[in-house]
Amino acid sequence: MKVIKGGEFLIKEVSSDSVYITEEFTEEQKMMKEAVVDFIDREVWPNKERFENKDYALTEQIMRQAGEMGFLGISIPEEYGGLGMGFVSTMLVTDYISAATGSVGTAYGAHTGIGTMPIFLYGTEEQRKKYLPQLTSGTKFGAYCLTEPGAGSDANSGKTTAKLSEDGKHYLINGQKMWISNAGFAEIFIVFARIEDDKNITGFILDYDKNNPNGVTFGEEENKLGIISSSTRQVFFNDTKIPVENMLSERGKGFKIALNSLNVGRIKLAAACLDAGRRVITESVKYANERVQFKTPIAQFGAIQAKIADMSTRLFVSDAGSYRAAKDIQNYIDDLLSKGKSHQEAELEAFSEYAIEAAILKVYASEMSQYVTDEGIQIFGGMGFSKETPMESAWRDARITRIYEGTNEINRMLTVGMLLKKAMSGSIDLLTPAMAVGNSLMEIPSFDIPDYSERLSEEKEMLAKLKKAFLMIAGKAVQSFGMDLENHQQLVMAAAEVMIEIYMAESAILKADKLAQMTSDKEASGQILMAKLNLYKAVNVISEKGKEAIAYFADGDEERMMLMGLKRFTKYANSPNPIKWRKEIAAMVIEANCYCF
Amino acid sequence: MKVIKGGEFLIKEVSSDSVYITEEFTEEQKMMKEAVVDFIDREVWPNKERFENKDYALTEQIMRQAGEMGFLGISIPEEYGGLGMGFVSTMLVTDYISAATGSVGTAYGAHTGIGTMPIFLYGTEEQRKKYLPQLTSGTKFGAYCLTEPGAGSDANSGKTTAKLSEDGKHYLINGQKMWISNAGFAEIFIVFARIEDDKNITGFILDYDKNNPNGVTFGEEENKLGIISSSTRQVFFNDTKIPVENMLSERGKGFKIALNSLNVGRIKLAAACLDAGRRVITESVKYANERVQFKTPIAQFGAIQAKIADMSTRLFVSDAGSYRAAKDIQNYIDDLLSKGKSHQEAELEAFSEYAIEAAILKVYASEMSQYVTDEGIQIFGGMGFSKETPMESAWRDARITRIYEGTNEINRMLTVGMLLKKAMSGSIDLLTPAMAVGNSLMEIPSFDIPDYSERLSEEKEMLAKLKKAFLMIAGKAVQSFGMDLENHQQLVMAAAEVMIEIYMAESAILKADKLAQMTSDKEASGQILMAKLNLYKAVNVISEKGKEAIAYFADGDEERMMLMGLKRFTKYANSPNPIKWRKEIAAMVIEANCYCF
Repeated sequence: MKVIKGGEFLIKEVSSDSVYITEEFTEEQKMMKEAVVDFIDREVWPNKERFENKDYALTEQIMRQAGEMGFLGISIPEEYGGLGMGFVSTMLVTDYISAATGSVGTAYGAHTGIGTMPIFLYGTEEQRKKYLPQLTSGTKFGAYCLTEPGAGSDANSGKTTAKLSEDGKHYLINGQKMWISNAGFAEIFIVFARIEDDKNITGFILDYDKNNPNGVTFGEEENKLGIISSSTRQVFFNDTKIPVENMLSERGKGFKIALNSLNVGRIKLAAACLDAGRRVITESVKYANERVQFKTPIAQFGAIQAKIADMSTRLFVSDAGSYRAAKDIQNYIDDLLSKGKSHQEAELEAFSEYAIEAAILKVYASEMSQYVTDEGIQIFGGMGFSKETPMESAWRDARITRIYEGTNEINRMLTVGMLLKKAMSGSIDLLTPAMAVGNSLMEIPSFDIPDYSERLSEEKEMLAKLKKAFLMIAGKAVQSFGMDLENHQQLVMAAAEVMIEIYMAESAILKADKLAQMTSDKEASGQILMAKLNLYKAVNVISEKGKEAIAYFADGDEERMMLMGLKRFTKYANSPNPIKWRKEIAAMVIEANCYCF
Repeated sequence: MKVIKGGEFLIKEVSSDSVYITEEFTEEQKMMKEAVVDFIDREVWPNKERFENKDYALTEQIMRQAGEMGFLGISIPEEYGGLGMGFVSTMLVTDYISAATGSVGTAYGAHTGIGTMPIFLYGTEEQRKKYLPQLTSGTKFGAYCLTEPGAGSDANSGKTTAKLSEDGKHYLINGQKMWISNAGFAEIFIVFARIEDDKNITGFILDYDKNNPNGVTFGEEENKLGIISSSTRQVFFNDTKIPVENMLSERGKGFKIALNSLNVGRIKLAAACLDAGRRVITESVKYANERVQFKTPIAQFGAIQAKIADMSTRLFVSDAGSYRAAKDIQNYIDDLLSKGKSHQEAELEAFSEYAIEAAILKVYASEMSQYVTDEGIQIFGGMGFSKETPMESAWRDARITRIYEGTNEINRMLTVGMLLKKAMSGSIDLLTPAMAVGNSLMEIPSFDIPDYSERLSEEKEMLAKLKKAFLMIAGKAVQSFGMDLENHQQLVMAAAEVMIEIYMAESAILKADKLAQMTSDKEASGQILMAKLNLYKAVNVISEKGKEAIAYFADGDEERMMLMGLKRFTKYANSPNPIKWRKEIAAMVIEANCYCF
């Protein structure tokens, strides 16, 4: 199978047999999924009300139980107390464990992601042997102390200091961290601090013992909009001693640790939005089937059907992209392992390789999550505004996903920034295909209409054209502004939107195609329709953002030529019929009375 | 001055001198505005935290103070205790009094709108003399009991009954109402109930005395997502006696009363979103100017600038549309008064005449309000998620504006439904211009590029073309489906989006144009840019929704011809440069450190 490396989806054709879909879960994975769903249905969903009453203790208790059930170290090798399963399994547990409340999702994500991964990825063998078993079993919980009042998106600008003690045995940490998830019950803190006037911060592992606080104090629980039973506090360090052997990696490597840990965190955050979304859709459809107005279940009204179709589609697309990237990462890890690399090296390289996809997924899935919960409220009408139905807390919980693990604005910027970095380092060749697209603009286009009778064939060709649109725009942007491009953020954001839509649309099309191959066109008909409906939306976004970009950096003949190119790259031969598609998709969801794709 | 009647904006060219803009406030209105802003700054804004702690008593107290200051009966004639000012003044007080918290905005809106207007519009002289002075002075407050557990959007399906007593002196009311704003402190209830098997419900005025509850009981305060210090309860009636003379209008007229009262409520709700939005933008800009990341105030980043520009633009557009319609209504009332009609008749006719515009404004302004607060959170980053900053409560409060006074879905449907009703009753001629557009599709278009040197001339021409696009789509939709159109809701929703964008874009363009006439192109440059940026967005929406509609109801040659027509109707001669415009708009807002348009 051809391996598509990070970012290469933009310049290569990807075949449906090279993408992974959840219908390929192994028996073991299916059992794992069932175990997690059972756990949530039994322990979390029935207690939703408690989670809306700041029951921090319940969140901690759920986390301990999750540890007992083995859910906290899915991909951690067995020698460190984990289950040694692949990354897809990590994603599926993250997906289903976050289904009922963002409070548990956040506690789980913070613990298993940024609370655990820095030690796994960067720790010494001793550090890993010592801390990982505690973390994977849930006997101790992790927290990640990066953000400060003055250092949010600009994470490397923190003012917390680390000073070597006179005897050379400890670092003394002084400073203030904020928005620290799990702070209220964590005992292992990843702390970032600056040594002397270092350009970059350094990472440390702090063993915290509440009976011997070692200069560590905590702020009150933050009063938050959502995820209100997840613990979020400020953490203050006052001459807190950390033994020198608890430095993570090397001096000045903290910023790199921080960034790479966020790569894992981001794609897992995408997964954490999925089952929460499925449940919101299912609850919405159930309500729409039950609620009668004008003597008709409101599910029979086109305006409601359109919502159900669009909600389902965005979820399907998020699901397709998340597991596709997860398996790409897993394959990459396996390949490196087979070449003799250590788990640590292999994972680090793999997460870094697919950092672009992780950022794309974080943005798309978190926006999906907000959208789905918002429409959920609207379907519930007045009842959606009441704390008696599950919509309003889902909507509030979704809000943070667009902010943490890097705001969606930062992540959009990153998708483009990382791609250009890859291009400049030569690890991906954007220039050749971009030039080819540039030259093709002058050619006379063919007016033959190809045979589109094969399943999704027009959609696949459209994808190829959308990639050309991206290359045309990104190529010209780089040519116009070079290294100064980052100072034209609206342009970068436009390019990011185009990239995001392409990756997600491709994931959906390839998933639907593969599923139809595995089953039949009929069985995959809902997925095929959703892939088409989503592509239609993607084409509109790309056309709009493309026009904005071209108007900004081109003039006269060049502008006209590029606008004509964009038009060609976004033109359907057979005009799409989204209203009909939405009706058909909604009919399936309404008939099933749940999101069951 | 040419009077543009309700809905006529779709078939007529409107000149900028025929629209009203807030820069034309009279001295009296400016003083009124200042008085309201002072009141809010002094009594409400500093107490925001109390409003986020379910301080219902504070809301009631603010309402009493508002009554003492004369804010509760702005347009009610002096003989009934009001100030006898025009509708524009009502809008401006509603606008500024709702600025600090949705709790007060809701209490105010419910009291002065649906709590007071049914009596003013439909009450007998005796009823008005008795109740309006109490309501305008705030000695008693009003509430509107329409919604029931089984009757939300389908308001006429309520199960509450009214039975004439044996002595013929009273009606006995039995039933359950829910989501009743101000229920906790109101004493005058407008109650809708069904007499026998009437097709339509009937309205009543209930004098409630808590010392003699007369079978009225209340549910607990609802636990809501937002507007949490506005009182919202269920109201139960158990053989509640209402004297026969307290019937509002006639038996079976209740549904009409309900609908017409909502027409006023809707446009006032649009106003209620304005100053709340201005303050959110101002707070966001201030934060963006202060918050430094990467050694740069974040207001200097393009991604933030784009948000500030888009937020400001949507607010400007909402403002332009709201006051334009308000003055049209006021002029219509004045005209009828001058022809000898009573205040009651004149207002009733005027609100009904501009019901389409009221629904458009309700949808647009409430969506603006959600959008602006959402981006406000995003600009604040992590702090936006904290209850310590004003963003999160604004976001939660905004959420209800898309649900109450008719969900935005119902209101979108209504815009189209009411227009078609007007067309069928002959009060507006859609057919002739729709046919003219249909015929013009076959003509060879002119390729001359007109002289667009005059201010906003291309934009005005674009508006004329967008109206043609609407007529083409609506005409074909009616032709295809006739009376069955309402069963093709997605199509109706698409047509509604097109209508909404046209009215709002026109309002913004005409406001900017008029302001430039009154001052100079330079002084109005921000407004001109916002009108252009908004038109660009409107054109995209109309192009997308138009394509969806055409694909749904046309095929083959007809489809191709209509798509070509749509393309022509949405084509700019000079390609717009939204990125540049956003930069320029943002620069002004950032420089001013507030939304000061």
